This record gives sequence, structure tokens and C-alpha cells, in this order.
Amino acid sequence: MKKLINDPADIVTDALAGMAAAHPELRVDLPNRVILRQDAPTPGKVGLVSGGGSGHEPLHGGFVGLGMLDAACAGEVFTSPVPDQILAATTAVDSGAGVIHIVKNYTGDVMNFEMAAELAAAETGTEVVAVIVDDDVAVQDSLYTAGRRGVGGTLILEKLAGAAAEQGRPLTTVADIARTANANSRSMGMALTSCTVPAVGKPTFELGEGEVEIGIGIHGEPGRSRVPLAPAREIAAMLVEPILVDLPFTKGDKVICFVNGMGGTPLLELYVMYNEVARILRGQGVEVARSLVGPYVTSLDMAGCSVTLTKVDDELLRLWDAPVRTPALRWGV
Amino acid sequence: MKKLINDPADIVTDALAGMAAAHPELRVDLPNRVILRQDAPTPGKVGLVSGGGSGHEPLHGGFVGLGMLDAACAGEVFTSPVPDQILAATTAVDSGAGVIHIVKNYTGDVMNFEMAAELAAAETGTEVVAVIVDDDVAVQDSLYTAGRRGVGGTLILEKLAGAAAEQGRPLTTVADIARTANANSRSMGMALTSCTVPAVGKPTFELGEGEVEIGIGIHGEPGRSRVPLAPAREIAAMLVEPILVDLPFTKGDKVICFVNGMGGTPLLELYVMYNEVARILRGQGVEVARSLVGPYVTSLDMAGCSVTLTKVDDELLRLWDAPVRTPALRWGV
Repeated sequence: MKKLINDPADIVTDALAGMAAAHPELRVDLPNRVILRQDAPTPGKVGLVSGGGSGHEPLHGGFVGLGMLDAACAGEVFTSPVPDQILAATTAVDSGAGVIHIVKNYTGDVMNFEMAAELAAAETGTEVVAVIVDDDVAVQDSLYTAGRRGVGGTLILEKLAGAAAEQGRPLTTVADIARTANANSRSMGMALTSCTVPAVGKPTFELGEGEVEIGIGIHGEPGRSRVPLAPAREIAAMLVEPILVDLPFTKGDKVICFVNGMGGTPLLELYVMYNEVARILRGQGVEVARSLVGPYVTSLDMAGCSVTLTKVDDELLRLWDAPVRTPALRWGV
Repeated sequence: MKKLINDPADIVTDALAGMAAAHPELRVDLPNRVILRQDAPTPGKVGLVSGGGSGHEPLHGGFVGLGMLDAACAGEVFTSPVPDQILAATTAVDSGAGVIHIVKNYTGDVMNFEMAAELAAAETGTEVVAVIVDDDVAVQDSLYTAGRRGVGGTLILEKLAGAAAEQGRPLTTVADIARTANANSRSMGMALTSCTVPAVGKPTFELGEGEVEIGIGIHGEPGRSRVPLAPAREIAAMLVEPILVDLPFTKGDKVICFVNGMGGTPLLELYVMYNEVARILRGQGVEVARSLVGPYVTSLDMAGCSVTLTKVDDELLRLWDAPVRTPALRWGV
């Protein structure tokens, strides 16, 4: 295992300390492993809290800031944050307008966010609404989930709900927008190589030199199938076609098209993939209204990519275009 | 070789087509392989042109836009763009206020940009000033250079000179700012793994499982030394200490601190490295005024990182903070 780390046991703490040093505009609660907006809680604003296992950076800590999350909880690598962390984040961002938990659909995450919501209600009377992200079309149940996994759509949901919260909309409205964003989003990923969990020290799975895994999860969970390495245009089709039929997306639909890198794949290849994805969408009459290309929802050092499509109307587009100022996503300010 | 590509011969064309599809706010001249601002030339504004071999994305095409470059020329992977490309870019961005060529110090790049400048002067009377970037402290001469290599400092220079050009400053002033940015910048990189050039199909060099290369170039050129894999804090010291003594940076200096990923290293590890770099700088009394963490000047799929420090005064800081709107770097708009 070759990684830029100190002790594998310290990787999350060290990275959070790095976040704190690099982003003085944020507040990092190191004991609780929570990244917060400096000004949290924002008076009158619904608080948005997300989090999950580390290893998917910039998700979620890199999306804390104006127009997106109020707080992110960092668990150990590929391990849910514990209820106490989530409770600390929830109470810290509650201005009285209530808090939304954005939870990727993994059994541990769902359970721990639920427990934290109950604790917050009991201890401080905070009203918490949970929105579950389950955008991955690859598999129905999987290693860590009942139902579909939450993957790239999480970013879309955090941006759209974050914009709505920033505009001062009430809890039920922001939660509805988050649910709509999830309902309108579909994703599928693939891996060229495994990731290596630092504490384990060896690849999570083995892939032959000529093999790729289609439908991989962001923790290296098995996908739909192993197929021979193929040109980008064929891989794009293997990802996009199951996404299109699933919602379904149809001719005339407007979408946000997000081509995501898994952590070990360079931008050059992601643009090659984007070109193929855009070509398929043009062929189907699906209009790309906005696009995003880069490593945003990663799986440690895994080489590979995922595609997320979100069907949008004018209101969702306005929320996407609204100002955002976070370490990883920023425009309009 | 496992990459998300079609034919290795088409990788640059395919990626440029992807850039064009993903960024309708830019103009991509596919035959010439030039990425341009949609509105080029901007009346009265000094034009900024850079470029180089592909494989370093988002450098340079991802830095085209308001407040940074007017055009970027994409060569084949790790190969200089040809004079005709650079000529096309130069004449396309010349509003009459002159054009600056920002050239990384590699023999082929320097020669081809020079030839293009002569052609532009002869054909259209365009006044061109070249500024060479040579910020890499690792080696004096190397595989592709006489003198030092241009690496991470290129981004800093493009941002600072780009801001000055956007403010309408004249050619000589913008060129002086670019030269100051270069003179104040020092970088050093390291690799955990080699990159693989698509047309070659195998790693450029071999590194043992327990080895890293310190002082690597962004094309996989040899560095200063091969050393055993070490904790992040020791690797940070191997990069930062030679940088500090070189300028030298001294107690009380203000710097922009840029921790760059080489393409195959995830953000989690870059923040671990940033934490160690920031710790060393604090210990030396060097003040980090601004920071940047991410994969911006890459070397295909190489795992590794580089550190760039740029000494800044209030004027350079204002230029850094000025609005920028490009695919890869954006703030203030």
C-alpha cells in the first residue's frame, strides 16, 4: 500500500486538521469530527447536515458553506459517523428552523442518523427531517444496504436543497426539494481498479488487467457484472443506458449531467467519458442543461467513474445556479 | 494499461470534444486544438496564451476564462503544441493590446512558442512577450529542459497575470507581474507511482512497492532521489525544506501555499499532506495567506503530489483574490 498518510489510524484526523488549516472560512470541530460553517447556526435558516464514512472526499466536508451544507460529519474510512457526532452537528446548526439530515442509504448511516435525530429531539427539541439518497441503479440490495445505494446524486441533492435553505424556505419545502432531487436522480459507476482501505492495507477486491467492474459501489461493493476492458464509448453506454431506462428519462427532458471521478482517474479521462455520455444523450434527445465533470464523490484511490443524471425543471435549475461557496463547489460568490 | 479512453491516438481530440460539450461558455477550436474564451479577443485587453503537452489537466484548458487565460493550446500527451496552433491562439486573442505567452520551461515548448511569436509578428504585427515558468527546485537541468522545469507555479502565474490583464493593465505591466510571480514561486513534487502514457501503454518508469521518487517532473522525469516510502510528515519535509532554502522564504513572509495532486492521488491524502506542509510553515514563521488543495497540474494517472509556495505582497494577494471564472478555478463570479 502506497499512500500519502502518516498512521492509517490517524488519516481522518489528519485530513480534518488539513481541512481546518486550508479553509479558515470553515470551523472544524476536531473532537467530534464535524466540519461546520463558521457562522452556524444561521438565524432563521433550516440547517442541512450530512456525513458518512470518510474516503469519498470532497463529499461531504468539501460541500460545507454558503448555499450548501451547514455541517458534515466524518466517520472513519467507509464507516458511518456515530450518533454523538451527528447530534453535535445537528444541535450546532439548529437556529430553531429545524434541521434536515441528508443520509446516503447505507444501513449504518440510516440507523445512526435516526438515533441522532431522536437524541436531538429529546435533548434540545430540534425538529429533524431525514431525506434518504438512493440514486444508484446498479443493484437493488447490496453489501451495506437494503434498497439502492446513495452515490453521486448526493452532491446534486445537497446543492439543490442547500440553495433552497439559503433562500430561507421552510423545513417542509426544503425537505420536499431534497426528495424531488433524489427522485429525479439516477447514477451508475464503474471501476478500473479497486480502492485500498488504509487500515486494511490491500485492495478490497481484485480485478484482472483486462477486466472492469460495471455497477460498482463507492466502497468497492460488487456491481452488476465484470466485463472485458472496453473503449470509453462502450463503457459510457453500459452506464448511461441503464440510467435512462430506469427513471425513465425521455426525449425532451432537461438534465444535469454529472461525470464523476472515483479518486484515481485523471480529468483527461473524465472529459473523454463526458464526451461519450453527452453523445448518447444527444442521440436520445435528452438535453443537458448543466454539467459537472470532476472527482467529487470518490472511493479513495479507486480508478473509475460514475455518471449521474438529474431531471430538472426551471425551479431546480435556478437552485443549481444559485450562489455556492464551499471548498469543492463554488460559483456566484 | 487500464484507462477510460477510446483509441490512444484520439485521446486529446476526444477530451477536447468533451471540454466543448461540458463548457458551452468556452469556444473550442477542434482543428487547431485551442480552447478560447467565447468573447476573444476582449477589446483593449492584453491576451494571455498558454499551452503545452496534454496530460496535465486541468492545466491549461481548464484555466481559460474571465480573469485567467484567453486561450490554451493542447499538444499531444506530454508533447509541445506546434507553432501553427500557438499562432492561431495568439492571433485569435489579440485585440491590439498585445499577447503574453506563458511558457513552461521545456525545450520544445520554448522553441515552438518562440516560432509562433515570430510568425504572429510577421503575419499580423501582433506584439508578443514570452514569460517562462521555471519554478521546480528539484533539478537544474533535466530530460526535457535546459534550466529548471515549469510545474505548479504555472497555475499561480496564470492566475495573477490573468487578473492583471482583466483589469486592463498594459502589456509590460502584465508581463512584469507574470515574471514576479515566477520569481517568487518555488515547487517540488514526488511520485508514489509512475504515470502511463496512453500511446506507450506501459508505465514510464518502475518504482518498487516500498519506494517513492522525490523531485519528480510532471512527465515522470527523474527527480533528486529514490527513498523508502515514508510517513506524510517526512515526505512533506523532503518537499518543503528544499523549497524554503531556495528562494529563500524567511520568517514573516506571506505565501500562497498550493498542495497539488498528480492525478491519481485522492483529496483525502492531499489534505493529510496539506496539514503537514502547513505545520512546517508555521514552525518556520512563514504565514500562509491563501491556500489551494487539489489536482490542478497533473501527470496523467501518476499518484503523488507537489508543493508550490509563492511569496506574495498585498498587490499579488489582491490579484489572487480577483474574480476568476474558469472550469477549474472559480470565485468571485
